[in-house]
Amino acid sequence: MYRDNPLKKISWQDFQRLTPKEKGPYFLREQRSYHVLTSQQFNRPMLERICDLATKIRLIGKTKGGIHFLQSLLSEKRAMLYFVQPSTRTFLSFYAACQILGIEPAEVRGTNTSSEVKGESPEDTVRTFSSYFDMIIIRHPVGGFAERIAWLLSNSNRPVPVVNAGSGKDQHPTQALLDIYTLQRSFENRGGIEGKKIAFVGDLARGRTVRSLATLLMLYPGVKQYFVAPKELQIEEDIVSAFEKSGTEFEICNEFERIIPEVDAIYMTRIQDEWDTAHESRLIDTSRYHFTAKHLKILKPDAVLLHPLPRRKEIAAEVDSDPRAVYWRQVRNGMWVRSALILTIFDRGGEIDRYHEDLIS
Amino acid sequence: MYRDNPLKKISWQDFQRLTPKEKGPYFLREQRSYHVLTSQQFNRPMLERICDLATKIRLIGKTKGGIHFLQSLLSEKRAMLYFVQPSTRTFLSFYAACQILGIEPAEVRGTNTSSEVKGESPEDTVRTFSSYFDMIIIRHPVGGFAERIAWLLSNSNRPVPVVNAGSGKDQHPTQALLDIYTLQRSFENRGGIEGKKIAFVGDLARGRTVRSLATLLMLYPGVKQYFVAPKELQIEEDIVSAFEKSGTEFEICNEFERIIPEVDAIYMTRIQDEWDTAHESRLIDTSRYHFTAKHLKILKPDAVLLHPLPRRKEIAAEVDSDPRAVYWRQVRNGMWVRSALILTIFDRGGEIDRYHEDLIS
Amino acid sequence: MYRDNPLKKISWQDFQRLTPKEKGPYFLREQRSYHVLTSQQFNRPMLERICDLATKIRLIGKTKGGIHFLQSLLSEKRAMLYFVQPSTRTFLSFYAACQILGIEPAEVRGTNTSSEVKGESPEDTVRTFSSYFDMIIIRHPVGGFAERIAWLLSNSNRPVPVVNAGSGKDQHPTQALLDIYTLQRSFENRGGIEGKKIAFVGDLARGRTVRSLATLLMLYPGVKQYFVAPKELQIEEDIVSAFEKSGTEFEICNEFERIIPEVDAIYMTRIQDEWDTAHESRLIDTSRYHFTAKHLKILKPDAVLLHPLPRRKEIAAEVDSDPRAVYWRQVRNGMWVRSALILTIFDRGGEIDRYHEDLIS
Repeated sequence: MYRDNPLKKISWQDFQRLTPKEKGPYFLREQRSYHVLTSQQFNRPMLERICDLATKIRLIGKTKGGIHFLQSLLSEKRAMLYFVQPSTRTFLSFYAACQILGIEPAEVRGTNTSSEVKGESPEDTVRTFSSYFDMIIIRHPVGGFAERIAWLLSNSNRPVPVVNAGSGKDQHPTQALLDIYTLQRSFENRGGIEGKKIAFVGDLARGRTVRSLATLLMLYPGVKQYFVAPKELQIEEDIVSAFEKSGTEFEICNEFERIIPEVDAIYMTRIQDEWDTAHESRLIDTSRYHFTAKHLKILKPDAVLLHPLPRRKEIAAEVDSDPRAVYWRQVRNGMWVRSALILTIFDRGGEIDRYHEDLIS
Repeated sequence: MYRDNPLKKISWQDFQRLTPKEKGPYFLREQRSYHVLTSQQFNRPMLERICDLATKIRLIGKTKGGIHFLQSLLSEKRAMLYFVQPSTRTFLSFYAACQILGIEPAEVRGTNTSSEVKGESPEDTVRTFSSYFDMIIIRHPVGGFAERIAWLLSNSNRPVPVVNAGSGKDQHPTQALLDIYTLQRSFENRGGIEGKKIAFVGDLARGRTVRSLATLLMLYPGVKQYFVAPKELQIEEDIVSAFEKSGTEFEICNEFERIIPEVDAIYMTRIQDEWDTAHESRLIDTSRYHFTAKHLKILKPDAVLLHPLPRRKEIAAEVDSDPRAVYWRQVRNGMWVRSALILTIFDRGGEIDRYHEDLIS
Repeated sequence: MYRDNPLKKISWQDFQRLTPKEKGPYFLREQRSYHVLTSQQFNRPMLERICDLATKIRLIGKTKGGIHFLQSLLSEKRAMLYFVQPSTRTFLSFYAACQILGIEPAEVRGTNTSSEVKGESPEDTVRTFSSYFDMIIIRHPVGGFAERIAWLLSNSNRPVPVVNAGSGKDQHPTQALLDIYTLQRSFENRGGIEGKKIAFVGDLARGRTVRSLATLLMLYPGVKQYFVAPKELQIEEDIVSAFEKSGTEFEICNEFERIIPEVDAIYMTRIQDEWDTAHESRLIDTSRYHFTAKHLKILKPDAVLLHPLPRRKEIAAEVDSDPRAVYWRQVRNGMWVRSALILTIFDRGGEIDRYHEDLIS
C-alpha cells in the first residue's frame, strides 16, 4: 500500500541532527502525513485539507445515516492509545475520534500494567503494540519519544503510523491543529485567519501549545501575534528570532487590558506549574492576566476567546455563556480534527468528499 | 429532538430547595425520563414500562438475530462511564447494557488519570465528557453531584442525558429499578408485587439501596414492609414518617427467625462498614441476621431471597443453589433493566415493542 | 447448545485429586476444548486444528472483506478479560483477538476497582462477570484459580467458558499454543516440528512457559530437547522424569555456544527474578546464556530464534533484524492462535474453513 517509506532511508543519528522543519518530509508518504509528530510538518495546503475534512465529518455526523457511514470508513482498523502521561481531554478526544470512524480502540495508560515492570525497554513495549494494532497514538513525557518509535517501526517488518499526542515540553501537534481549526471556523465569514490579530496570554514560556500554534500561524500572511505575560513567563527567544527572520508581525507586552479591545482572538493559558522546580510560579502575580466578566465589555463584538483547557482561574465561569467564549466548541473541534487527521493518514479523505457532495447536492 | 428542557427553566438555587419528589418532573422530557437521578422520579407507569421493556429485551437477546437487532438500536451513540468511586458490578452492568444496545462505551475511573490533577473543576471535567459523548453515566462520592451536572449541562450548548449510577450515601436509582424488576419477575405468576410481604434485613441505616427500594414499594398498594435489624442499624426516621403519612403498612423488629416464614421476599444486606467512623459496626452482633441453609426449611416454598451484592457472610454459599435464591438472577436483571432504561432515555422503546410483537406472533 | 457438561459430574474434591492429564477431558464439550486451562488438555489433533485455523484466520485477515467476515463471526458475544496480574502482551493479544472476531471486550485489571475491597469472595466476583459476559479470560496469581472458577461456573445456572491466561507459577496454556504455532510455521517447509532439535536457554526452573512447551513437544515424535542453563536454574525434576518415562530424547547442559550450531530452534528466556525470595538470581552469572550478534554466525542458516518476551539482555537488539529472529512474529502469532482458540471454543471453525476454501479456489 505505502511503497515509499522515507524514514527507512535515513539513520537515526542523521535524523536526529535535522531541524523540526527538515524532519517534516520524512513523516510523509505520497504527500500525505503518515506519521504525525510535529506541528512543523504541516504546510498551508495540508492544514486547509484537514480543516475541510473536519467540517465535512462534523456535518455528516449530524444524521444517523451519516454516523453509520463514518463508522464504516475504517472499521477494519484497530488502534492503540498509549498514554504514559495523564490526560483526559486528549485521550478521550482520540478515543472518540476512533469510535466515530469505526476504529476499535485499545488503551495502555501509565506504565504500571506494562511489561516495563519486568524490565522491558520502551521500544520493545511499543513494538509489541505494533504487532497487534494498525496505528499507535502516543503521549509520553520524554521529548522525541514518538519520533524514535516512528523511526524504529519504519525500520521493522511491521511499520504502522505513529501519532504524537503530546511529548515532553515540546510538541503537541494535534492541539495546534484543533486551535487552527477553531480560529478558522471562528473567522470563516470574515476572510479566514489571514490578517487577524491574535493574543496569547498567561504562561507562554512553558506551554507547548502556544509554541506550536504561534509557529503554525506564521503560515498565515498578515497575522499579528501578541504575547501578553509577566516577563518570567514570556515567550522564548527562539520563537522571537523565527518571527524576526520570517518578518512575522508581533508584539511582546504585559498590559492585558490594553490589548483586549484591539485583537480578534485571545488565547488564554494556564500557569503550567507542573514544570516548576521550586514553586517559582507562586511568586508571580498572574491575577492581572485573568479574563473576567468585566472584560467582555471591552472585547470586540466579533472577537473570540480560546483556551486549550484545563483552566483554573484564567477565565471566570460567568464568561462561559458569552457567545464569544469558544473554548468548549474548541474541545469538540479536537474530536473532529483528530478524526480528519486519522482519515488523512489512511488516505480515506476522498470518500468523505464524495459523501459530502451527495449530501449537499 | 428534545424541545422541552425543564432544567433550563429553573435556577440552581431554586432547584436545590425542592424535595426529591418535586425535582422529578425536571428530569423528564416529553413524559419520559431524560436524566435519571433519583428513585423518586419514577411513578408506577414508568416502572411498569421499564420492566416491560427489560423483559422484551431479555427475550429478544436469546437469538443471534435478536442480539444483532438490539446492537443496531443505538449504534450511533457513544457513552461516557465516569466512575469516581470503585464499583465492579454497577460499572460492568452499565458497560454491558451499552454493548447490548450497540452504544460504544468509554470510561474514566478514579480521578488520577483526569485533568483534575491539573486543578480543573469537576464541572469542567464533566463538561469535557459532554463535548465528546452522547450520555454520561456517573458514580460519584458526593451526594447531588449528578444532579448538579445534569442542571449544568442542561444550561449549556450541549445538553446530554445524565444517569446517576450511585451518588453519596443517598441515591442509587438504577439499583432500585433492578430490585423492583426482580420482585416483579419473581411474582409475575402470583399477581405481581401488590399485596406482598417484603422484609429488609441487615444494615438498613446506611444502605442507599434499602432506602430507595422501600420508597418505590410505596407505589404498590397492599405491600407490607418489614425492617429487621439491630436497633443501631435500623431504618431511618424519615422513611418511617413517609410510611406513616402515606398509610404504608410496616413493621420494625429484630427477630429475624420469626419473620422468615411469614414473608414473600427477603432482601438481605451487607453491613456497610465503609461508612463507620470508628469501627462501630464491629461492636454489633449481626450474626443473628445471617441467612443460612437451615433457614431454607422455614422459608415459604414460593418466597424469594434477594441481595444487592456484594455479600460477605449474610447469606451462606450453600443457599445459592436453592431455586428461591434469586440474587444471581438479580445481578443479570440489572443489565436488562439498565438496557431498558437507556432505550427509554433515547425514546427507542417502540422499536422493541414492534420487534417483540413480530417475535411472538 | 452444550448438552454435555463433564465438570458438573465431578465434585471439586475429586477433581482436585486428578493429574493435569486426567483433568483434560473435563474441560471438553463434544470433543472440543470448552474451558482452556492447561497445556496438558491438548492432544496432537487439537493442536493441528488450532494451528490450521490460525493460519486461515491470518490469511483471511489480509483483505478488508476478510476482516469484516471475521468481525461477523462472534459479533453476538461479549467477553470479560479479568487480569489480576499485570500483563501487557497477553492482555492485548486476547483483546485484539476478541476485536478480530467481533467480540466486544470488557476488562477488569487489578483488584482495586473491584468489589473485593468490600469483602466479596473472588468466586462471587467472577460469578458476577459470568452474569454479564459470554466468556471469561483470567490471569491470576493463584495457581488453580481458573480451574476453580471453571468448576464453579459449570455447576451454576450460567456456565460460560473460562480461558486461563496465566495462573500462578504453573500454567500458561495459550503461550504454549503460540509457541507450538510459531515452531510449526517456522518448519512448515521442512516437514514440521517432528524430529527437530530444540534448545531451551536461560531460567528453566521458574518459567511456566518452558514447562508447558516442553510438555507439549512430547506429542511430536523424534524431537530432541536441550536444556541449557546454569544448574541453579535448570529444568525441574518432574519434567525430566516425564521425559524418561515417555522415552523423549533430551540433554541437560550448560555449554550454550556448543549447542547453538547443533539445533533447529533456540527458545531464549528471561531470568524470572520476580520469583526470587532473596535476590538469589543476582549471584548467578547468566551472561554466558545471552544470544548476541556474533552467535548469528554459528547458528544454522535455517534455524529459528524464539523468545516469549519481554526480554532484557538475553538477546541483543542487533539480532532483531536477522530473518531467523522470529520472536516478533511469535508475538503476532499469539493473536492469531488466540483467535483460533476462541473460535474453537464457540464451535465456529467450520465457517473459517468454508470462507478459506472459497478464497483459495
